[in-house]
Amino acid sequence: MSRNILEFDTVALEFAPEESLPGKPKTQRPFLKIIDQTKLPGKVEFLSLSELEEIRDAIYLLKVRGAPAIGIAAAIGIYVVAAGIDAPCYVEFEAAFRKAKESLAGARPTAVNLSWALDRMAKVVESNRDKSTDEVKTLLREEALRLRDEDVAACRKIGEYGLSLIKDGDGILTHCNAGQLATIRYGTALAPIYLGRERGYHFKVYTDETRPLLQGIRLSAFELCAAGVDTTVICDNMASQVMKNGWVQAVFTGCDRMSANGDACNKIGTSGVAILAKHYGIPFYICLPVSSVDMSIRTGSDIVIEERNPGEVTEMWYREPMAPEGVKVFNPAFDVTEHELISAIVTERGIVRPPYEENLRKIID
Amino acid sequence: MSRNILEFDTVALEFAPEESLPGKPKTQRPFLKIIDQTKLPGKVEFLSLSELEEIRDAIYLLKVRGAPAIGIAAAIGIYVVAAGIDAPCYVEFEAAFRKAKESLAGARPTAVNLSWALDRMAKVVESNRDKSTDEVKTLLREEALRLRDEDVAACRKIGEYGLSLIKDGDGILTHCNAGQLATIRYGTALAPIYLGRERGYHFKVYTDETRPLLQGIRLSAFELCAAGVDTTVICDNMASQVMKNGWVQAVFTGCDRMSANGDACNKIGTSGVAILAKHYGIPFYICLPVSSVDMSIRTGSDIVIEERNPGEVTEMWYREPMAPEGVKVFNPAFDVTEHELISAIVTERGIVRPPYEENLRKIID
Repeated sequence: MSRNILEFDTVALEFAPEESLPGKPKTQRPFLKIIDQTKLPGKVEFLSLSELEEIRDAIYLLKVRGAPAIGIAAAIGIYVVAAGIDAPCYVEFEAAFRKAKESLAGARPTAVNLSWALDRMAKVVESNRDKSTDEVKTLLREEALRLRDEDVAACRKIGEYGLSLIKDGDGILTHCNAGQLATIRYGTALAPIYLGRERGYHFKVYTDETRPLLQGIRLSAFELCAAGVDTTVICDNMASQVMKNGWVQAVFTGCDRMSANGDACNKIGTSGVAILAKHYGIPFYICLPVSSVDMSIRTGSDIVIEERNPGEVTEMWYREPMAPEGVKVFNPAFDVTEHELISAIVTERGIVRPPYEENLRKIID
Repeated sequence: MSRNILEFDTVALEFAPEESLPGKPKTQRPFLKIIDQTKLPGKVEFLSLSELEEIRDAIYLLKVRGAPAIGIAAAIGIYVVAAGIDAPCYVEFEAAFRKAKESLAGARPTAVNLSWALDRMAKVVESNRDKSTDEVKTLLREEALRLRDEDVAACRKIGEYGLSLIKDGDGILTHCNAGQLATIRYGTALAPIYLGRERGYHFKVYTDETRPLLQGIRLSAFELCAAGVDTTVICDNMASQVMKNGWVQAVFTGCDRMSANGDACNKIGTSGVAILAKHYGIPFYICLPVSSVDMSIRTGSDIVIEERNPGEVTEMWYREPMAPEGVKVFNPAFDVTEHELISAIVTERGIVRPPYEENLRKIID
């Protein structure tokens, strides 16, 4: 049913071989296993993490990124950390868990999935005060795996709905990476491509390189090529020309956080792509699981946008300094695409059309 | 009158110290002197060129770039080459000159200034068949220096007209480099900024980095910072957010070739910036000398767009490979901004408003 595009899940729960210490029952130490996305496409390198600090850093340093993948990594990660908490009673366990949760939640401010997944995990702790810490740990593991399974199922559904919007042979433009590497399998924006491919369709995919961190050329191109999809990389500023050439029949991107009115906060540059698509009369689709919709914020202007290190912009060229010393840099990680620019929102619960405020509420409440 | 932003001209004619060979009259060997723009902003390195092949390569490899600067480099360059032609008669001289001209003209296909400047130089040769080759060489030198002086004067005029379109304190967005480094002094798109600065105005300039070759962050930021202008660099895909934030009151870019109807062929990404500007209601101005207007082509769709080496896109990241092996790359060097997106065209003969076909003809014919 649910095939894997690559030969691994982007984020996984893994157990070390059983350890048998004298006088103790056999234990299996759990790990959060991720592929280190900062090394792609040059090296396929996996990391097995169990310490809070290294899990937090993996999220902060974008070793794992993409809103759904961050959510699952945080869920599995906090289970892994919780499994290692050696607390004699619930109160101490709960205090240590809460501290770990706060630390992970602060690693990336924008993606709502991070806090959403951590809240789901916290609910398990809160609603099982009567259980032993070992029992709570087992329940946390089950919840983390449930979140993972839900994500895989949601992505497949997004793929099904998205696929109904395009036809064999279409050219699709995407920005950043909202593929398998941003989720567990399939991805969101790329799920329609992969499902179509399973069914023998041929799409031509154009992927913006997505400066400054190049998730499009490094990650989307990597997984699309691995899946045998006809893939062309372009610099971000070439999207207009590709559209003008008539090569693009639809744009699909992901979304890190959507407000109740349908405004979509996603990787910097997404709003520009949406404006170009409108100019050229090309439909622009946002693909996301409902877990990325934040009904508590009314419009995109209420979303806090993460500004990152100027060095991401200025220190990349391999030959010589690429910017004059002391120049100012503006480096927002995200932008907000206003709902008026979005042709439809593709979720695992169906395709949402305007008016978004009303129609999002229907599938979420 | 004509102040230099940097402490040198971008392109210059230079003479080696007099050489005195036994039995020959004293000679001064001419050189084309350029700043090597591929080394900026890390190194300020000048090149003195006299051989046809190295002059051609300097243009092809973008050591000198920017439509007006290419034109002057070609004019001075072909004079330098012609000065070295040791031909006994006009017929042989003219044949050698024509061969050199064809070689230089093929170095970059898009910028019209290259062939325009070479044609002006060729006319000197053609209309002086009765002169000695030494006399023709002198006339060629004079013509090359005339072209240079005309360029400096044109840029200053463009600056004056452009400055009338903005006011003190404005935020200006620019793409690629159409500053001093693209001309001899002042630039085209950046000339209004520099003239304003001479008069005590303060502008905030946002410069797109301009992938793949980073002329915005490397060159525009370099010369703007050198001139003491408040400069912020952004990745190309951040322009939408900067405009949305209300930080941009006008966009100024250069133009490599304009068709008779006002369509502007310029660095890849320019059309996208123009579409964003229209979306956000920001005026979009093209600045160019009339030598960049090609009245022989009716619309922008007739302009041949140079596609360059895929490695420009895929081989830049200093750490690891930045693209998966074998992925396709689309790397057009230019795009065409349709005249409907242009608020006004700023030339040394005045500001041209729509209808462009009619109004360009008025200032050019």
